[in-house]
Amino acid sequence: MVTKTFSYRLGEIAEYIQAELIGDPELRIEGLNTLQSATGKELSFFSNQAYQQYLSSSQAGAVILSEQYQEHFAGNKLVINDPYYAFACLTSWYSLTRKSEGIHDTACIGQDSILGADVSIAPNVVIGNDVSIGNQVVIGPGCVIGDGVSIGDNTVLYGNVSVYENSQIGAHVIVHSQAVIGSDGFGFAKSPAGGWQKIYQLGKVVIGDHVEVGAGTTIDRGALGDTIIGYGVKLDNQIQIAHNVEIGDYTAIAGATAIAGSTCIGKHCTIAGAVGIVGHLNIVDNVHITAMTLVTKSITAPGSYSAGTPMNTTAVWRKNAARFNQLDDIARRVKKLNKD
Amino acid sequence: MVTKTFSYRLGEIAEYIQAELIGDPELRIEGLNTLQSATGKELSFFSNQAYQQYLSSSQAGAVILSEQYQEHFAGNKLVINDPYYAFACLTSWYSLTRKSEGIHDTACIGQDSILGADVSIAPNVVIGNDVSIGNQVVIGPGCVIGDGVSIGDNTVLYGNVSVYENSQIGAHVIVHSQAVIGSDGFGFAKSPAGGWQKIYQLGKVVIGDHVEVGAGTTIDRGALGDTIIGYGVKLDNQIQIAHNVEIGDYTAIAGATAIAGSTCIGKHCTIAGAVGIVGHLNIVDNVHITAMTLVTKSITAPGSYSAGTPMNTTAVWRKNAARFNQLDDIARRVKKLNKD
Amino acid sequence: MVTKTFSYRLGEIAEYIQAELIGDPELRIEGLNTLQSATGKELSFFSNQAYQQYLSSSQAGAVILSEQYQEHFAGNKLVINDPYYAFACLTSWYSLTRKSEGIHDTACIGQDSILGADVSIAPNVVIGNDVSIGNQVVIGPGCVIGDGVSIGDNTVLYGNVSVYENSQIGAHVIVHSQAVIGSDGFGFAKSPAGGWQKIYQLGKVVIGDHVEVGAGTTIDRGALGDTIIGYGVKLDNQIQIAHNVEIGDYTAIAGATAIAGSTCIGKHCTIAGAVGIVGHLNIVDNVHITAMTLVTKSITAPGSYSAGTPMNTTAVWRKNAARFNQLDDIARRVKKLNKD
Repeated sequence: MVTKTFSYRLGEIAEYIQAELIGDPELRIEGLNTLQSATGKELSFFSNQAYQQYLSSSQAGAVILSEQYQEHFAGNKLVINDPYYAFACLTSWYSLTRKSEGIHDTACIGQDSILGADVSIAPNVVIGNDVSIGNQVVIGPGCVIGDGVSIGDNTVLYGNVSVYENSQIGAHVIVHSQAVIGSDGFGFAKSPAGGWQKIYQLGKVVIGDHVEVGAGTTIDRGALGDTIIGYGVKLDNQIQIAHNVEIGDYTAIAGATAIAGSTCIGKHCTIAGAVGIVGHLNIVDNVHITAMTLVTKSITAPGSYSAGTPMNTTAVWRKNAARFNQLDDIARRVKKLNKD
Repeated sequence: MVTKTFSYRLGEIAEYIQAELIGDPELRIEGLNTLQSATGKELSFFSNQAYQQYLSSSQAGAVILSEQYQEHFAGNKLVINDPYYAFACLTSWYSLTRKSEGIHDTACIGQDSILGADVSIAPNVVIGNDVSIGNQVVIGPGCVIGDGVSIGDNTVLYGNVSVYENSQIGAHVIVHSQAVIGSDGFGFAKSPAGGWQKIYQLGKVVIGDHVEVGAGTTIDRGALGDTIIGYGVKLDNQIQIAHNVEIGDYTAIAGATAIAGSTCIGKHCTIAGAVGIVGHLNIVDNVHITAMTLVTKSITAPGSYSAGTPMNTTAVWRKNAARFNQLDDIARRVKKLNKD
Repeated sequence: MVTKTFSYRLGEIAEYIQAELIGDPELRIEGLNTLQSATGKELSFFSNQAYQQYLSSSQAGAVILSEQYQEHFAGNKLVINDPYYAFACLTSWYSLTRKSEGIHDTACIGQDSILGADVSIAPNVVIGNDVSIGNQVVIGPGCVIGDGVSIGDNTVLYGNVSVYENSQIGAHVIVHSQAVIGSDGFGFAKSPAGGWQKIYQLGKVVIGDHVEVGAGTTIDRGALGDTIIGYGVKLDNQIQIAHNVEIGDYTAIAGATAIAGSTCIGKHCTIAGAVGIVGHLNIVDNVHITAMTLVTKSITAPGSYSAGTPMNTTAVWRKNAARFNQLDDIARRVKKLNKD
């Protein structure tokens, strides 16, 4: 296991996150951890009341917390309005940073492709022709980058990512392993003989800056126009995004969600896991959709939306589920009984 | 970005799709686009009444449409019975064609493997022993092809596809990146000690001609017999097909659908996205299943099938969903009130 | 196609599975097959009453069955308490075994990495620094193994697997193609400006011995602590496991299931396909969850759990589903009619 020794003074941490330090500025903080698990050399944070029971007894060397809870922890503390955000900012200090390793001998780079300064191109990367790669870009082992792709500065692709031709990926983007960007949309016309005529997909994928794309997520190219992923969008693992979908800035989508073709999702939406959204819909800004909901119509007002039935023991569920098939009949009878 | 200049005479396009040309046969058409976005050098099509508002005002250089709508567009037109199919056929003319690039130096090819004429084997492809690859086959970078695999003429595998040993892939097949063909089916027997004994999967995958397999789709090998994907089947992204599933000719399945073991699906079915189909079922020909339906029993008659509950605001949904757990009780009370 | 001739005496098979042999110990068994398809040179098994119709007429050279059914088959038989488990044990005898092929010239292996005896490292494998790989480990083509990873003895990774830094994989583990182990968990904090601050994921993935990970399955690293997959866990294809999930020993999960962050699942659970489990839940040992159930609360008692509505024709379903939105109103009316 790779262990890198991180060590920062509590004082410099306080300064970085702009917190009020109550305690010893010289304390060396070697890691971050939960209230329950943190040791005297680790920093923790308190932002969720559900964990209040762990606060006063935490062994953490220091805790980030808000003013109203500062009396509940006796040790070193960093007082700030939003402890969770401050903690999030600090995580990068304790993350293994990727150093530039230059261009590996085994990388294949096509004609007329331009690589920026300080790029890191790992072994077995295959880059097509007319590709443009920005400064400080990191491309992991085994990535395949098609002709005409552009990738902005500071973007990181982990190993075995596939990017089809002409895809445009912004700056400060992170793409995790096995993600596919720019694969063909699922477009076919019925042929007179009853088979399927492929509709070659002539558009592309455009991904904004500061986007994260999870492992195994697939984003299809547009049929005629483009599939567009806005600025600051966060996509978890194994999401399927069909051709000509548009996702607004800052929208975050959890794993295993699937979005069908030409659907347009607004900004600042949060879509939970395993959601399905059918094609050609419009969803406005600031919509939240709960897990495993199927969205079959456009959403025109902000708010939270759901579908599905509650889990129960299979025995109880089976009795109720069987009645679902009688629901229209039940409703009619009740209406009649009420003499509506 | 790779831009290739396409330009065809409207007259030759009319001839190819066998449409009646009303207008200028010498007009050069440089691309395809929607009614709303097409320019004077682009060709569009009208096949969906929902877009009729855009027809008369379209700036397209020409429009493919059916006879009954030809009066609604004043410019050049190509009149034909099925404009959408005609448009679909034309898309291949405007798609970047893959040229044969021969066999890259870095490709590893095992013993007793046979490659057809004009194959394109990209960098870092690894091909096992006793593999048979047809003419004009294109294998993208990083693909892994196991021992004993056969691939028919004109088939294309995009980058980073994995094909396990003995899989049989037909001709004119397209397999998108990160797809897996022939992985082990999920088969285990309970051991007397309470653990799981692996059932080694001894069958294979057989894929017919003219099949398309989407990005990240996984097709498991059979346990004893084979997993069979029929002629002309179209599979979207991130579909999971378990061992010994059989899918009939021309069936099309949308993204994120999962099909459990030994289920047999008929011909000409259309299965929407995120559908689940449990194992050991039979589904007849010409069945349509709507999005996110769970299929738990065989389907013996053609038609459209559904399950699930409608989306609502979370607040309203929660009240109704809570009542789902009382449904059997409600039904009994209603029955009693009706003195059934 | 690779065909390897397997041939074992029925007598040695009986001895291996510890069955009573009634018949010819010298019969050569060249393969395993179903009752319906087996030939006179193949061995079959009978363990599911649904197939009893095929037993007496089976052409199999021999059948594994339990004592109570031995009268129903006239040919050679192997009598044993649990025919399915015995068959499962035998499958390995008829599976193509992977031979060690040593370390391919094109493999890139980082500094301070240790490889065990008789490892097989395929072409284009990229192994980082400080990696520890056990004896008899097989790593398929195109796998990417990050810094600090450890892999136990006899583990097999198929082609194009991605393993992020510091992941720990046990012994006798099988990981199928396109699986991703150790990708970043989906963690972000809202920034004051309304965007998302990435929470760098500082934990790792720990996978026990005798685990199987299906094709395209993704397992995220922990945010602070680790994501833990217990001993003997079996994961099918395209499962998504979020950060800090813990899965107890021997639990088996079918394809396309998604488990959100910090959820803890007990031992000996069986979770069907396309299930969704939200975050921060606890599920006790010996729980079964049926297909496509959404689990939104902890499960505190063993047993079987379900959610969802039954499939119907779309026409009938639509009428009933529309009434779901009136369910609370219906329940209130029924209550009133009953004068509760």
